[in-house]
Amino acid sequence: MTSAATGQGASSNFDAVELIITKRNGGVLSDDEINWLIDSYTRGAVPHEQMSALAMAIYFRGLTRPELVRWTAAMIASGERLDFSGLSRPTADKHSTGGVGDKITLPLAPLVAACGVAVPQLSGRGLGHTGGTLDKLESIPGWRAGLSNDEMLRQLEDVGAVICAAGSGLAPADKLLYALRDVTGTVESIPLIASSIMSKKIAEGTGALVLDVKVGTGAFMKSQADADELARTMVELGQAAGVTTVALLTGMSTPLGLTAGNALEVRESVEVLAGGGPADVVELTVALAREMLRAAGREEHDPTEALASGAAMDAWKAMIRAQGGDPDAPLPTARETEVVRAEHDGVLQRVDAMAVGVAAWRLGAGRARKEDPVQAGAGVELHAKPGDRVTAGQPLLTLHTDTPERFERARAALAGAYEISEGTPDLPPLILDRIG
Amino acid sequence: MTSAATGQGASSNFDAVELIITKRNGGVLSDDEINWLIDSYTRGAVPHEQMSALAMAIYFRGLTRPELVRWTAAMIASGERLDFSGLSRPTADKHSTGGVGDKITLPLAPLVAACGVAVPQLSGRGLGHTGGTLDKLESIPGWRAGLSNDEMLRQLEDVGAVICAAGSGLAPADKLLYALRDVTGTVESIPLIASSIMSKKIAEGTGALVLDVKVGTGAFMKSQADADELARTMVELGQAAGVTTVALLTGMSTPLGLTAGNALEVRESVEVLAGGGPADVVELTVALAREMLRAAGREEHDPTEALASGAAMDAWKAMIRAQGGDPDAPLPTARETEVVRAEHDGVLQRVDAMAVGVAAWRLGAGRARKEDPVQAGAGVELHAKPGDRVTAGQPLLTLHTDTPERFERARAALAGAYEISEGTPDLPPLILDRIG
Repeated sequence: MTSAATGQGASSNFDAVELIITKRNGGVLSDDEINWLIDSYTRGAVPHEQMSALAMAIYFRGLTRPELVRWTAAMIASGERLDFSGLSRPTADKHSTGGVGDKITLPLAPLVAACGVAVPQLSGRGLGHTGGTLDKLESIPGWRAGLSNDEMLRQLEDVGAVICAAGSGLAPADKLLYALRDVTGTVESIPLIASSIMSKKIAEGTGALVLDVKVGTGAFMKSQADADELARTMVELGQAAGVTTVALLTGMSTPLGLTAGNALEVRESVEVLAGGGPADVVELTVALAREMLRAAGREEHDPTEALASGAAMDAWKAMIRAQGGDPDAPLPTARETEVVRAEHDGVLQRVDAMAVGVAAWRLGAGRARKEDPVQAGAGVELHAKPGDRVTAGQPLLTLHTDTPERFERARAALAGAYEISEGTPDLPPLILDRIG
Repeated sequence: MTSAATGQGASSNFDAVELIITKRNGGVLSDDEINWLIDSYTRGAVPHEQMSALAMAIYFRGLTRPELVRWTAAMIASGERLDFSGLSRPTADKHSTGGVGDKITLPLAPLVAACGVAVPQLSGRGLGHTGGTLDKLESIPGWRAGLSNDEMLRQLEDVGAVICAAGSGLAPADKLLYALRDVTGTVESIPLIASSIMSKKIAEGTGALVLDVKVGTGAFMKSQADADELARTMVELGQAAGVTTVALLTGMSTPLGLTAGNALEVRESVEVLAGGGPADVVELTVALAREMLRAAGREEHDPTEALASGAAMDAWKAMIRAQGGDPDAPLPTARETEVVRAEHDGVLQRVDAMAVGVAAWRLGAGRARKEDPVQAGAGVELHAKPGDRVTAGQPLLTLHTDTPERFERARAALAGAYEISEGTPDLPPLILDRIG
């Protein structure tokens, strides 16, 4: 912890009310004021009611770029920072802002590791309609998310990829502030979102970072303009902290791949690692892998070769085994399924990502509260994607759950979620833009 | 307490986060939502961090008139409401938004009582640069601020005027919210200011209310436009609650009268009741008295007659005696004085109200924290007002304090506070507008 972060010294005499009023009136906070504020909040010396009023003022007034750089640095300085500089290979990490069916981390981490770049991926569990990477991997028998820092370092050196739970020591100010924003209506602020993501990612110690910023009905950012602003903000924050950072803007109006659920998504990820899998999942996995390799200075490696040769699959199996999992064990399946069929012939115009995400969540794949369990086998399987021609009676979706009383609410979520008509839908590209 | 206010029943299932987001996004809260929110906050079921985020959202988005009427009603319903309908005469109350040298309540309450209208004036202590009515009266030997509801009713019936401390049972939601706003930078919101004042005044049970809304450098509202909006908002809230309400907009760029301080202001108030006193104090006292009499349906009484006849002075003495005070005892004086003199000849162009208020406060007349004591004799005495011709060496101000080490900081507050030059200053009228 730096001296600024501990609040010792001459800068410790600010008044939180004055800082709130400065921001409320559209003014700019100084470096010392921000350091004092974040440190005091982390220590409990600035109470939640002052921080929530400030967060709401930031929602309306924003933060200047220098304020935001300092805010992010102060959140990093509130806790420990990992250091992978002793590894024999470069590191690259990836972060997605969250989407329905977004299992990309699962094939991506071993794929990039197979190309000689270490991937230290600290992940979380899901809340709401988007799944959590750890929830997905926990459907693999024996696999465990919790590693010590030493275990993580050893696995990165030996296997090259690790996906595990983030320790509580990273950016504790962000943990407090995120929990506060969640209950005070102050989540939807681009500077606060950007600093939350980037403080964690920078504290994790990666040398390069690729961001997958989702846009569309199933994403947090509904408009490309907002997604673009968030992506640019995060790229600048990464670069200000000395981390090579690139962002892709990718579509999230329809689910990614053909599955949304925990074991369902692991199965699809393994298909990609075996050289198959849905075209959109393969496209995005390879595109993000190329960005990570380039950002880490290893652009000479071709990820499609690592998929074709089986090297990526080998890295996957080694990664799963290193964390106690059995990559060859059968994956759990749900006890009950129900099929949704096409009512008539035509072309599938759209499948709404948010509706599918909510249906998967209601089937048991996600949780409403942090302490809820998830069902490993639950979720939604798609049998067609927008642009596909379907015939009356053909299966469109299969719903999976262990608890069949959930089918009704899942079907309710899917009402109006898809549309079949004549004509070819105008489908946007998956990768909308690149910022970096 | 109404059933809506207790939160019992079907309306008790709102989500505070959703209400915050509705307001943040510029939406409108329903009556049930507001009732639930104020009641839940008063009971501690909605935590401070949610209310402070909402208060900041209201700062930016405002409240519609129906929202504000409901918000005020819910704050009144959070506690007890006094009832003076059993008195033999009508009631009228007055509220000032606070200014420097504003001792008007002291002569006004007995003056109106002498004209046949009962004045139940629940007051507070001062904080910051404006003094508190109770602090002023407590400089009278023996006088006590605390009365039970029964004592208050009896004094209103017998004497016709009471100035006492507000009990803790009136609008407890406002007490909580005011304390929260004070530490979260959300004081300066016209709807929140208006509902705070009006919820207390309506809960106090008066039949008519006259508001003195101050405008100028020494007032909370610096511009006439803001003061006008606050006045109109409060008048509408009063009328919505069935209380005849009128507001005067009055100037507060120069101190009212010639004194700012506790015993100093009592002395000046007694001069007014004796038929003398500074012209501006007399003008405003009589104007507010006429408004109170008119609002209470007693416009046939002439307050200038009650001053001339001694009836107002008799009511003052009876009011002070009823609360244990000796109206004929000498008032306390400060142990030390220091005189500020004119540097050269000329016309006094201005005397800044805020600077005089801060100087009086620093001399010991006011308090920085609620628990601080005040000095009865401390304050500032003016020997000239803007527009007066002065000569070099003539006393302009006398500073009074028991603790002479305070003179230096009081003088610092007065640097640049007055100006002497040739030419006649353009002095605005004391009463700027009437709304009601």
